[in-house]
Amino acid sequence: MKNCFPGEGWRRAVGWAGHNVIAGVFDGIKQWHKDSTMIGFLDGPHGVFSGNLGGFDMLGSGRHKIESEQQFQDSVAVCNAIGLDGLVIIGGDDSNTNGAVLAEYFKTHGCKTKVVGAPKTIDGDLKCPPFIPISFGFDTACKTYATLVGNVAVDALSAQKYYHLVRLMGRSASNIALEVALITRPNACLLGEEVSRDKRSLRDITLDLADMIEERSADGKDYGVIILPEGLIEFIPEFNSLISELNDKLADPGAQATEVSKENENAWRTPAQPVDPVQEAQATEESVLAVLSKENADCFRYLPAFIRAQLLLDRDPHGNVQVAKIETEKLLAATISAELDIRRAKGSYKGSFSPQFHAFGYEGRAGMPTIFDSAYCHALGAT
Amino acid sequence: MKNCFPGEGWRRAVGWAGHNVIAGVFDGIKQWHKDSTMIGFLDGPHGVFSGNLGGFDMLGSGRHKIESEQQFQDSVAVCNAIGLDGLVIIGGDDSNTNGAVLAEYFKTHGCKTKVVGAPKTIDGDLKCPPFIPISFGFDTACKTYATLVGNVAVDALSAQKYYHLVRLMGRSASNIALEVALITRPNACLLGEEVSRDKRSLRDITLDLADMIEERSADGKDYGVIILPEGLIEFIPEFNSLISELNDKLADPGAQATEVSKENENAWRTPAQPVDPVQEAQATEESVLAVLSKENADCFRYLPAFIRAQLLLDRDPHGNVQVAKIETEKLLAATISAELDIRRAKGSYKGSFSPQFHAFGYEGRAGMPTIFDSAYCHALGAT
Repeated sequence: MKNCFPGEGWRRAVGWAGHNVIAGVFDGIKQWHKDSTMIGFLDGPHGVFSGNLGGFDMLGSGRHKIESEQQFQDSVAVCNAIGLDGLVIIGGDDSNTNGAVLAEYFKTHGCKTKVVGAPKTIDGDLKCPPFIPISFGFDTACKTYATLVGNVAVDALSAQKYYHLVRLMGRSASNIALEVALITRPNACLLGEEVSRDKRSLRDITLDLADMIEERSADGKDYGVIILPEGLIEFIPEFNSLISELNDKLADPGAQATEVSKENENAWRTPAQPVDPVQEAQATEESVLAVLSKENADCFRYLPAFIRAQLLLDRDPHGNVQVAKIETEKLLAATISAELDIRRAKGSYKGSFSPQFHAFGYEGRAGMPTIFDSAYCHALGAT
Repeated sequence: MKNCFPGEGWRRAVGWAGHNVIAGVFDGIKQWHKDSTMIGFLDGPHGVFSGNLGGFDMLGSGRHKIESEQQFQDSVAVCNAIGLDGLVIIGGDDSNTNGAVLAEYFKTHGCKTKVVGAPKTIDGDLKCPPFIPISFGFDTACKTYATLVGNVAVDALSAQKYYHLVRLMGRSASNIALEVALITRPNACLLGEEVSRDKRSLRDITLDLADMIEERSADGKDYGVIILPEGLIEFIPEFNSLISELNDKLADPGAQATEVSKENENAWRTPAQPVDPVQEAQATEESVLAVLSKENADCFRYLPAFIRAQLLLDRDPHGNVQVAKIETEKLLAATISAELDIRRAKGSYKGSFSPQFHAFGYEGRAGMPTIFDSAYCHALGAT
């Protein structure tokens, strides 16, 4: 039996534990037959259809997909040429979906290679109990982030003067934020899924957090820790509606606004012929308010100036607003600060609100794996 | 003998190790005489002159100083009232300077309390060999940051598509950046002291890093890790000169620009009466270029648009530019990207440059202490 391992979508993120999947496969096939051999494909799926072979250490990862008919044909040819019995794919939902399609193609085209997926993602959104209780990497990432959040919380308690707003990786899912909150017990943790279910607005969230800050302040505590999931903004319904209308109205290829956006995007790249982004943006902000529905215009006005500017200036080549680039922790700190200023003027709030920002992502994807992830990965590989 | 411990400037930052100083003092005075007692002041120096006593666990820290004649008198009164033999100050350069002044005041005013300082700061800039080889906290902070930078480096190697720009805490000193670089071996690490010594400009630094990125790209490597010290910008001479002139010209109370700045600063706090920051800023950018010297105007033009806007909009109540708020890693990524675009147009560079940003600070100040810091702190206390 021959086995090979593309690094498909396999970030070293969960890499040290990921190695254990490979070690497990090796142990498993050797137990099955002493002459079994193992082959690794470098750089993910690209390695499968281009026949790019390599050792199983440091396979690297790829974001490619096997998509075109030619790539599928090449994949069959490569697997047939080396007489491959099994292909193990280590990756997240995208990689495993692609793996399933590849498996069907292999079967209908008489290729003997069986495709097996190993569930890898730190996001914790790839599970299907009882078959897949959890993806590997989640446990390691949560414990790495929890260590950092714990450090920040201890510092908050000592300095007694900052609110630390911590944004955690995890794409749309708030699984990581929830798990880290359960470990570290911050003063608040927002979950995107709850925000969406309860149809909460940015203002609702702001008022809630301001209430907590006001209450703690009355108790002499002008400090704390608030955890936010990376995908929070996507879950706020009014925000979705605003973004959607902005994209509709501004990404229109004929619209003047799109041209402005593209020009500004490269403004600082051409210092020799400086474009004045400020003048151009002015036209845009006015024109935006003129075309938006009343609800969306109100939502737009509620945003702090630097976020409004970001929405108008920082768009992708298609003119779409880049929601992922919005730093949620800074947006919320600004709306909370504005709300607290109103309460201060009314006399109900007398504290000080000094935010500090943290965004943890890549540093949690390549930590030393936990015992759980190490054992889980070896078991996955050996099965 | 009685001993007491203000948390002066003592962040729990280095807190767990800091506890060992206190444990060491306790062991030391008990060895000296079994009836010795230890008293702690809560919340730093504020506790000394206000007589705010507390247990030695979780003393908390303070940024207050003992400054006024009244505060000095009160400190003497409190120390005399409890018959204090020794006062141990755990803090950085500010705290220990204040401690030295307090010691002189105690001596000249016939107070028997002796003041002893314990050197605490993660920055690693408080040393005076052979008396003080290093402050405690530095070792723990460096190893905490090195773990994170190491994780990021492993992820960079796997994904093979990002340049990670990591800014590390440490105020003006680059000690932490250097130590972490020696542990993790990134592709580049800038040291503020070298930049200052060699009078390097932002453009010089940009060209150097672009050279490295171009060279790595020719080798098929469009990824890497670059470490920057928090205080880098202060060390770039031309930048200092620009900031100084901006402050001179713009902070003039009569100048129109200052008014604009103040208005904009609070623009997003008053959504009911929206000020258009964009229109106001335009006037400012024009007026700035008109009044700057040629060298400083060139330097200003070399900056990316978002940094120019930040310099004009984000000023403190005195109208001064807030250099500390500039995110050095984003500034450098923008100038590097612009330089690489020029090289791409010329044909010498064919790669892609996708930066990812990290700023590690508070998360390194409250980590589990290293064996070195733990032992060092106990020894400091027991001496």
